[in-house]
Amino acid sequence: MDNPRLHPKFISSFKLLGKPWTWLIICVVLTGKRRFSDISATIPRISDKMLVARLKELETAGIMERHVYPETPLRVEYELTEKGRDLKTVIDQVQQWANTWLEDLRFVR
Amino acid sequence: MDNPRLHPKFISSFKLLGKPWTWLIICVVLTGKRRFSDISATIPRISDKMLVARLKELETAGIMERHVYPETPLRVEYELTEKGRDLKTVIDQVQQWANTWLEDLRFVR
Repeated sequence: MDNPRLHPKFISSFKLLGKPWTWLIICVVLTGKRRFSDISATIPRISDKMLVARLKELETAGIMERHVYPETPLRVEYELTEKGRDLKTVIDQVQQWANTWLEDLRFVR
Repeated sequence: MDNPRLHPKFISSFKLLGKPWTWLIICVVLTGKRRFSDISATIPRISDKMLVARLKELETAGIMERHVYPETPLRVEYELTEKGRDLKTVIDQVQQWANTWLEDLRFVR
């Protein structure tokens, strides 16, 4: 059986999406525009530094948009683009898989 | 708008699956039983040390099985369990998303 070839698009999507925290951030913002503090409060144990880096990557990749409102104090909100919202089908599938298979949570520290 | 709550099962599935290389390893073994060297040869730039660690995690999580054949030299093959094969639907969705949105690969280094 010869080795399968992984399509470059496939590798690059998992390079982007296969990073720790990325999926959880997308899940939180999937529910609507969120402030940095909202996202940070919803994801246990994510550092601000990590969240800043992941949000930047997602913005660069065109998955996330950053809205700045010229108020005092300045208001900044994050929102998924259409490209980002289209990941909902992937997240739904993971949710379904988790419901089917993940009765015992202890194996994941 | 109050903050969404992420279900613990959801967080733990992305903790396990949201690690670099994990998805690509699952994709390779989804095509059938594979030896370590096959998997390593198919995924560009993954180190042996990383591949050993990820395979161990996937085995512990019940997603991967390791078959040892008492031959000379010893033959070892990896295979997805039913739980692992059930991730195909997630992978198919990512493939679909990548085909729709990832025309420009340069943004992902």
